Amino acid sequence: MAQVTAEVRVRYAETDAMGVVYHANYLAWFEVGRTEWLRQQGVPYTEFEARGLFVPVVEVQARYLSPARYDDVLQIETTVSDLSPARVTFAYRISREGVLLCEGRSNHGFMSRESGRPVALARKAPDLYTLLERSGADR
Amino acid sequence: MAQVTAEVRVRYAETDAMGVVYHANYLAWFEVGRTEWLRQQGVPYTEFEARGLFVPVVEVQARYLSPARYDDVLQIETTVSDLSPARVTFAYRISREGVLLCEGRSNHGFMSRESGRPVALARKAPDLYTLLERSGADR
Amino acid sequence: MAQVTAEVRVRYAETDAMGVVYHANYLAWFEVGRTEWLRQQGVPYTEFEARGLFVPVVEVQARYLSPARYDDVLQIETTVSDLSPARVTFAYRISREGVLLCEGRSNHGFMSRESGRPVALARKAPDLYTLLERSGADR
Amino acid sequence: MAQVTAEVRVRYAETDAMGVVYHANYLAWFEVGRTEWLRQQGVPYTEFEARGLFVPVVEVQARYLSPARYDDVLQIETTVSDLSPARVTFAYRISREGVLLCEGRSNHGFMSRESGRPVALARKAPDLYTLLERSGADR
Repeated sequence: MAQVTAEVRVRYAETDAMGVVYHANYLAWFEVGRTEWLRQQGVPYTEFEARGLFVPVVEVQARYLSPARYDDVLQIETTVSDLSPARVTFAYRISREGVLLCEGRSNHGFMSRESGRPVALARKAPDLYTLLERSGADR
Repeated sequence: MAQVTAEVRVRYAETDAMGVVYHANYLAWFEVGRTEWLRQQGVPYTEFEARGLFVPVVEVQARYLSPARYDDVLQIETTVSDLSPARVTFAYRISREGVLLCEGRSNHGFMSRESGRPVALARKAPDLYTLLERSGADR
Repeated sequence: MAQVTAEVRVRYAETDAMGVVYHANYLAWFEVGRTEWLRQQGVPYTEFEARGLFVPVVEVQARYLSPARYDDVLQIETTVSDLSPARVTFAYRISREGVLLCEGRSNHGFMSRESGRPVALARKAPDLYTLLERSGADR
Repeated sequence: MAQVTAEVRVRYAETDAMGVVYHANYLAWFEVGRTEWLRQQGVPYTEFEARGLFVPVVEVQARYLSPARYDDVLQIETTVSDLSPARVTFAYRISREGVLLCEGRSNHGFMSRESGRPVALARKAPDLYTLLERSGADR
């Protein structure tokens, strides 16, 4: 599937008393990565919510290889590693100048904003689903 | 007005690379303080939202005297320093074993969840307003 | 191994625009859980740092079953699921009134504060290692 | 003094259950603003720490005029509104497409990393002080 790169600069707010980035903040950067991935496929996440859909995280995993520090500029590479009518999985690689710091993935469901219940994207918003699916064409 | 004390233990997530708590996190502790203040007056904040009201922060101020560190147990003393039909101001003092670390205040408006427009609490929810006002009786 | 329960109340700061807790914040609660676990075994995390050791997260995983909301009181059950001379794995279950909301685990290394390099806890601080190991006795 | 503009895109992590940005997050954006201001004057904040100095927040104030939402692109305008040998005050204006959302300021001391005690920047690092002072020349 299409790979998209986003960039963040580490904030002091994101560091901790070990002098490096607190591990939970990488999950917010994963979010930055998939937000940019969706935008570049032509389906910004705001469009999902405008259609009455939430795309909540169901599972997340991260592996930390080397620490990031204040003021570092980081690259977040995002791909979709799996897509089904009811679920999507994003995969992330966060690096600094070519050195991999963290890799992870997040699995998401599609949910109705109103009912709070799971929905099949392929049925509820077939055009969005098709757009996501086509992003896999250029694998 | 009534004074209420809440307690928090500093999380590693709340520290930064200076080895102490990142200043913005005190604002979340102010929130812990006023949440507890409201609950103890018999008007939990959830009750405001259940009545169709938000109570957004309009202005905030904090002064930092001494740093808090990981695993410190802190006391948050909260009072209401000002109340009008359209606004409420909370004042906070955060200390560790009697030593004042931070003091501040936050000013809030009352807003309709639906319209997003300011409302007068005294008119929209007179019983909640009266409860807040009475908390001033024991000054 | 010993199971320890900690409690948190959800802050507004921890919610997001879906109206529920943002998923990354559960990782900070995992931290609250293991901090309490360590304290109750007689080896508060501050003791590790006082001995010149950091215990950084090497890998983390979380599965979200049901959302937590503002002002919810949550229980965090923590156990150590694996311990070796060079690594420790904590397992967590976060629930509200008996309903499981999130489960996860985190894997940690032991690292010298000075050199930033991995160390074997069993050799660097054998008494701390023994204390952790003994917590497994009451399995 | 020189005015510098930085840009951030609102993360979902920064929103709260009111559907807008949680107020404390603006303080982290203030930090993004002054980090960029310092870099553009030729004295990145990392340089202060490399010289054995911390520049902790002593006081902060923010006024919220209109909410920011997920995925908004925001401009942070930063200036130095006051500089003395022992203190510096930054002023911030955060806006979206020309509409002011939040304004604030932060006052900082200069502190020795080692001793944790206040120091006069003008004496401890006269070249850094001169650089900051000169940024006022183009007022």
